[in-house]
Amino acid sequence: MKEHCGLFGIYKHADAARLTYFGLYAQQHRGQEGAGIVTWDGSKMRDKVSPGLVHDIFNEQDLSTKLVGDTAIGHVRYGSGPSSAAAARESEPFLVRRNGLQLAIAHNGAILNGRQLRKELENQGAIFYSSTDSELFAHLIVRNLDKMGLEESIRAACAKVIGAYSIVILANDVLIALRDPLGVRPLCLGKLGNSPVIASETCAFDLLEAEFIRFVRPGEILVIKGFEESCMQSYPIMQNPSAQACNPDWQGTAHCIFELVYFARPDSTIFNQNVYMARKNMGIALAKEAPVEADLVMPFPDSGVYCAVGYAQASGLPYEHALIRNHYVGRTFIQPTQDMRDFSVRVKLNPVQNVIKGKRIVIVDDSIVRGTTMRIRVKKLRELGAKEIHCRISCPPVRHPCFYGVDFASRGELIASKYSKEEVAKSLGLDSLHHLSLEGMLSSVVSSGFCLACFDGKYPIPTGA
Amino acid sequence: MKEHCGLFGIYKHADAARLTYFGLYAQQHRGQEGAGIVTWDGSKMRDKVSPGLVHDIFNEQDLSTKLVGDTAIGHVRYGSGPSSAAAARESEPFLVRRNGLQLAIAHNGAILNGRQLRKELENQGAIFYSSTDSELFAHLIVRNLDKMGLEESIRAACAKVIGAYSIVILANDVLIALRDPLGVRPLCLGKLGNSPVIASETCAFDLLEAEFIRFVRPGEILVIKGFEESCMQSYPIMQNPSAQACNPDWQGTAHCIFELVYFARPDSTIFNQNVYMARKNMGIALAKEAPVEADLVMPFPDSGVYCAVGYAQASGLPYEHALIRNHYVGRTFIQPTQDMRDFSVRVKLNPVQNVIKGKRIVIVDDSIVRGTTMRIRVKKLRELGAKEIHCRISCPPVRHPCFYGVDFASRGELIASKYSKEEVAKSLGLDSLHHLSLEGMLSSVVSSGFCLACFDGKYPIPTGA
Amino acid sequence: MKEHCGLFGIYKHADAARLTYFGLYAQQHRGQEGAGIVTWDGSKMRDKVSPGLVHDIFNEQDLSTKLVGDTAIGHVRYGSGPSSAAAARESEPFLVRRNGLQLAIAHNGAILNGRQLRKELENQGAIFYSSTDSELFAHLIVRNLDKMGLEESIRAACAKVIGAYSIVILANDVLIALRDPLGVRPLCLGKLGNSPVIASETCAFDLLEAEFIRFVRPGEILVIKGFEESCMQSYPIMQNPSAQACNPDWQGTAHCIFELVYFARPDSTIFNQNVYMARKNMGIALAKEAPVEADLVMPFPDSGVYCAVGYAQASGLPYEHALIRNHYVGRTFIQPTQDMRDFSVRVKLNPVQNVIKGKRIVIVDDSIVRGTTMRIRVKKLRELGAKEIHCRISCPPVRHPCFYGVDFASRGELIASKYSKEEVAKSLGLDSLHHLSLEGMLSSVVSSGFCLACFDGKYPIPTGA
Amino acid sequence: MKEHCGLFGIYKHADAARLTYFGLYAQQHRGQEGAGIVTWDGSKMRDKVSPGLVHDIFNEQDLSTKLVGDTAIGHVRYGSGPSSAAAARESEPFLVRRNGLQLAIAHNGAILNGRQLRKELENQGAIFYSSTDSELFAHLIVRNLDKMGLEESIRAACAKVIGAYSIVILANDVLIALRDPLGVRPLCLGKLGNSPVIASETCAFDLLEAEFIRFVRPGEILVIKGFEESCMQSYPIMQNPSAQACNPDWQGTAHCIFELVYFARPDSTIFNQNVYMARKNMGIALAKEAPVEADLVMPFPDSGVYCAVGYAQASGLPYEHALIRNHYVGRTFIQPTQDMRDFSVRVKLNPVQNVIKGKRIVIVDDSIVRGTTMRIRVKKLRELGAKEIHCRISCPPVRHPCFYGVDFASRGELIASKYSKEEVAKSLGLDSLHHLSLEGMLSSVVSSGFCLACFDGKYPIPTGA
Repeated sequence: MKEHCGLFGIYKHADAARLTYFGLYAQQHRGQEGAGIVTWDGSKMRDKVSPGLVHDIFNEQDLSTKLVGDTAIGHVRYGSGPSSAAAARESEPFLVRRNGLQLAIAHNGAILNGRQLRKELENQGAIFYSSTDSELFAHLIVRNLDKMGLEESIRAACAKVIGAYSIVILANDVLIALRDPLGVRPLCLGKLGNSPVIASETCAFDLLEAEFIRFVRPGEILVIKGFEESCMQSYPIMQNPSAQACNPDWQGTAHCIFELVYFARPDSTIFNQNVYMARKNMGIALAKEAPVEADLVMPFPDSGVYCAVGYAQASGLPYEHALIRNHYVGRTFIQPTQDMRDFSVRVKLNPVQNVIKGKRIVIVDDSIVRGTTMRIRVKKLRELGAKEIHCRISCPPVRHPCFYGVDFASRGELIASKYSKEEVAKSLGLDSLHHLSLEGMLSSVVSSGFCLACFDGKYPIPTGA
Repeated sequence: MKEHCGLFGIYKHADAARLTYFGLYAQQHRGQEGAGIVTWDGSKMRDKVSPGLVHDIFNEQDLSTKLVGDTAIGHVRYGSGPSSAAAARESEPFLVRRNGLQLAIAHNGAILNGRQLRKELENQGAIFYSSTDSELFAHLIVRNLDKMGLEESIRAACAKVIGAYSIVILANDVLIALRDPLGVRPLCLGKLGNSPVIASETCAFDLLEAEFIRFVRPGEILVIKGFEESCMQSYPIMQNPSAQACNPDWQGTAHCIFELVYFARPDSTIFNQNVYMARKNMGIALAKEAPVEADLVMPFPDSGVYCAVGYAQASGLPYEHALIRNHYVGRTFIQPTQDMRDFSVRVKLNPVQNVIKGKRIVIVDDSIVRGTTMRIRVKKLRELGAKEIHCRISCPPVRHPCFYGVDFASRGELIASKYSKEEVAKSLGLDSLHHLSLEGMLSSVVSSGFCLACFDGKYPIPTGA
Repeated sequence: MKEHCGLFGIYKHADAARLTYFGLYAQQHRGQEGAGIVTWDGSKMRDKVSPGLVHDIFNEQDLSTKLVGDTAIGHVRYGSGPSSAAAARESEPFLVRRNGLQLAIAHNGAILNGRQLRKELENQGAIFYSSTDSELFAHLIVRNLDKMGLEESIRAACAKVIGAYSIVILANDVLIALRDPLGVRPLCLGKLGNSPVIASETCAFDLLEAEFIRFVRPGEILVIKGFEESCMQSYPIMQNPSAQACNPDWQGTAHCIFELVYFARPDSTIFNQNVYMARKNMGIALAKEAPVEADLVMPFPDSGVYCAVGYAQASGLPYEHALIRNHYVGRTFIQPTQDMRDFSVRVKLNPVQNVIKGKRIVIVDDSIVRGTTMRIRVKKLRELGAKEIHCRISCPPVRHPCFYGVDFASRGELIASKYSKEEVAKSLGLDSLHHLSLEGMLSSVVSSGFCLACFDGKYPIPTGA
Repeated sequence: MKEHCGLFGIYKHADAARLTYFGLYAQQHRGQEGAGIVTWDGSKMRDKVSPGLVHDIFNEQDLSTKLVGDTAIGHVRYGSGPSSAAAARESEPFLVRRNGLQLAIAHNGAILNGRQLRKELENQGAIFYSSTDSELFAHLIVRNLDKMGLEESIRAACAKVIGAYSIVILANDVLIALRDPLGVRPLCLGKLGNSPVIASETCAFDLLEAEFIRFVRPGEILVIKGFEESCMQSYPIMQNPSAQACNPDWQGTAHCIFELVYFARPDSTIFNQNVYMARKNMGIALAKEAPVEADLVMPFPDSGVYCAVGYAQASGLPYEHALIRNHYVGRTFIQPTQDMRDFSVRVKLNPVQNVIKGKRIVIVDDSIVRGTTMRIRVKKLRELGAKEIHCRISCPPVRHPCFYGVDFASRGELIASKYSKEEVAKSLGLDSLHHLSLEGMLSSVVSSGFCLACFDGKYPIPTGA
């Protein structure tokens, strides 16, 4: 299962459900298909899990009278299609009720040997309700629980899986946060008053005015049983030996650089790197790598804005915000009329002719997801009188699929990369096109230890599973 | 888990989902807490399962574009409270997706050794998503599937459980209906055109204009793989030996007589017995056992109507329909004002003073569920001028709990039976009270082989589990 | 405009909006298309008016925080179709805000010279927002307000209109109830604690446990400005002279007898007559007029029940309740499949074959609204084995249109009356058919002064307008 | 009534309702409280008018089966509070049905002598359903209709009113667009295929890919009865004499300059002026008037973006987009916890510390609506390490109320202007504050003839009314 999701957890706070709500709300950009909150009310777990957006799923009554308890975890789920019947079944956290222990699990990442592990478990009699990796983890943990106890069962589960995973677990009143040995997806630890909080991105802490403490470390299982330092214990994940064997020379972490390029919110800091600054630096690097004589720089909002800001500053070209966004565009649409061509492209963003007419333009964006959208926009800019149109992309062309949670195939990026730069530029109607080089990209970020497999095909975690 | 639910299934019909919708709709009285439909679309299962009423859950789009496929099963779920967060998790059919085989299971009844079986399974590594018996069955079936095949796995599962169960299963495109060895809950086989249909009650067949064929036999596993007789094979359930051992002298079936007294729709035929006629005969028997000099007979609608009709005919007293029902009473209420006493009793039924004033009245009902409601109604009738109020109940007092799916405790009937007839009559403000005798009740039905445990304490299935 | 609606009003009670809600709730049978409540909050009017059922329109928040104030009126609106866009515009009470005075008006009845009055008013510059008679009244009242004051303006308005009307008005904190000179539609005065209450039917008082005081008199304008008798003043309506001129020999009132036959709730008392008793007496009269050798009497629920009870008692034939109602039938339907013929007739009521087979049956109902429904039911009963089917209707055939609020045309009754008794019986598949005679009907009710125009064509109010 | 709304109209197009839907959708920023569409179906008008956002009010069924017809008008309504009960009553277009003629009217602006005209009309017997100016216009038009005909009645109505108004009218199948003599609010004429279209702003044309033809002229009543030029006739509005008398020396138009500063979408062209360019020029002028030694320029999104772009270009300072918007902020909120101070300010925009820390910042915005928001933001920026914070506002301080449709009082701007520049800067925690001068503002726009009353107190239309 390909998953790109957001996690949240909070330990012993009187407003646990409400703060989880806002923690998810701040991370809604990480998943719009579904959301869920599970609380521990002192004797059992309460949950509400549903397809939809956070502010549509939960109401005041849920937070004040149903999701009672002082410890909670939450999840926002990413998905491509409109909310489907299946989405109900796939929403997380996944909740298991046993006699002595209740477990709620929420996951961000992708387990590569999930199919094989499911088959193994099924052969041992397991049945699966959903296709989530959270349910898979629940099975793996539960089967050792009686003999090993909670912490060691989690370690044993992690030793079985191969893949990218950041996970929060609520085990009765114990809050656990863990991250795969390579730290592919982000996970952060903060503090609100005395209460430890966990989130995928620091922007959740900002909204709650929680203090950022540190990142959950790659390969760390952080078990929170109390407020004091001494009650927060770390256990090392034992990497699955076949994972390690496959990549003997991979050193250190494998942070997903696409989190910086595209996924994360610009106001977040993840992988020791502020996202805004990373994107701006990519724009600066782009301007150095591929300068162009032009009249203005404009982003494709919103994702291209920060890179365009950097390009403008480094190139000395004026920044223009010339595509106007309709802020009322919702999820479901009335069908346009038959002759309203390219409607879906047009409805969200409208270009300002007065800025564009007679001008040589540099467009900056973070990716050419689908050639079609870019092609339509370029054509429109020509109609409005643009004299030249140059495009600058803030990362190298995506040439290899991601197996760790980014669905490039459905985003259309792999298709765009089948052709040469010149072919793509021509096909899109561009006067020039440049993708930031790998070196340029890496020079834009302060941290290191990134997974670049989508660009260079060097996979840190075996994908044959 | 106490369950009193409704089942439906249809095999290879172009309108499978729609007919399942209507089959559930006709059986909505068997469960208002939740409903679900699962279809087999030729390569995978589609499902929609949700808390709520059938007509609120499914819309035209669900039936025409989502729940595609020609074979389907459905379930309506009984529950006491208002639709809760938990209800989402407990709704059925329960669906398991495996590589080669997908299983959807819907259940009506109560498994007595469920807790113990769950513990056993959990010890073997199983995890449970819900507390439904359907999930338990899914586990029991799946664990033998590879070595035994579908039919034998179902037999093996049945041999493990002790309890009352009527079940429909969809296994890819195979439709299966089965009933516990004592046939506690009803299950019927019909035919719509060429398509076999399954339902808890025949009233579902009437709505669809399907033809009634026969009852699924106690202890029968009916496997439907085609239209012809030869494609519908029966397998015998092997009773759990500890179940049998416990009741060596129990002979034949143990049909729940409360289905006839209260649960089933009067237009249904179950256990070889039309429900309307059974209730009317109980009224006739009551009139013989406990005649009274009075001016009129009136039912507490709707359940008392058919019994009152019988009492009136046998006694020669006039039948009056003197409690008027508000047909717009919904599930959720605006709170009444503080001084609107007894509002919830009053809002559904309002007595007609002109019929009651100065009269000696015989009230006929099927049970004294909660003394409070009866007490309030009797008091109101006195205020309206009733001279005498006699109450006749169409079954003996409930003195023992039901372990097979009737929640007498929450219905309050056990409490009422702690006192003598005279004490209860006095407490309720009645001039006289009579419960139909066991003999009178049994003489009212044409069939035999009933479970009477709630009246006489003789349990056909061991309850110690 | 043809209107058959329900009215409610309450004066100075702390729970005014909530009690109005329940007053409308009890009268929901008088109109399901829309509802509205207007309150006076001490300085201005608050309102919520919408298409739909009472319990769908208002929520707890509306009643506790929006519709504040201690004096209120409400309305339920009758309409034939499903809730349409237009319904929003036509819902009542109609509210007019002027500087010094705010007026809310709710109406039950039909103004015959409405079209002409609208034209007159339009010629004087008036514009109309809706097609309600309430808005027409608002215009007629307002134009004299400055020179005549409130009471006289209302009198002057009444003197202009020709028709049937029961009306409640809220004029700031003054509550007014009025009824046309012939008293066509019902209107009742009651008391809840010290607070005067107004309702179309007494069943609203029963739910609130309000005390019935008296009927608002035909031709009375009752103005309520305080709790004491002295603050409740009556003003006589001056009948429109052309109305009177047209019917010089009409004496007394013209109560709509169809309220007793069909519209009102059986537990209500209107026109000095309990509705249940009237219907039962009609059944008794029917049994005398048209006895038949048969095995049983059964009603078409719910409207035929009370008449069937009377018929059974008078004829000595057993009463059977052999058509079973599905209590979960909602307003909107999933479409049945193509071969589900007569589905809409079948879905609400299902006959019990065991009661019917081999029997000679007397069906009792209050009307043959559409031949089609009856024909389908009769055919079904034949299929189930009925030997003879006789039909008895509790009123004479409707031969003339009603201009005072009953939409016989859309109910299909006029069509049925174009044919002879024998033709209708044959067309419907009946062995015999009898409509209660006019004399029989009148002998069934204790009061007198009824409008019988739909039966005898003698219109008490000129219809040429 | 203060109104700031959006209008749309389309003449004889097969998809009239759907295109009106999208025309309103593109102008949703002009009003979020309610919306409505009225169509002429060839014999009568169809309408749906409701509180809420365009995409919540209308569904596919409304557009395809209910709002049939080929000519339509629509309206989006501006309001401050959450959707209230009253909003239903105030939504437009206002619709009047008369025998021969049906009129639907939608209005943007403010009638100054509305109260007086209402009183006059009420004295003549008129009653008012709502407090909209559209209803007032309906009254004024209707009362002359019979003797004057449509066009002259509209002219006569306009001659009565004093105020700012842009209006679209549908009179059966005739589409009319008109604008007050001073042209305070915008209104544009376009063409889609052969069909004339009307909109408040050209951004609606862009979405539909309609061609812009010209602005409706100040003082023009444009009557559209056919596709050809000859079927589109213009009638001059006769200004109300008392309006003219009051301002003998006012020359030309009085375009609301706030449309350019704040209201209109940046991609629209109104008053012969592209909005984006106007805002950018204001930023350029600001940079000249009030330069400051700083490290970066950042806008308060979204309204400050375009001005900040200009300021950055003119000053040579880098542009940073350092306040990150949460795109999922909806209209209704879960309450934050008690200690989440300033939550409502924080939830929409989060500053990026890495951009801000240690920097001298120039904030650019279009107004200081409420000091509180600015004060909180400035405080936050200080906490994040900003060394200096300078604020530049793209228009002069608002010192006088607007009577023509801008609700400065509720926006809080008048309050802010009671103090000196230095006082305000100090109170907000700013190192410096500068408002663009009147001259600077006027030099930023290519057109002339603006109303500047909110800045200089010179009212072009008498406000004493």
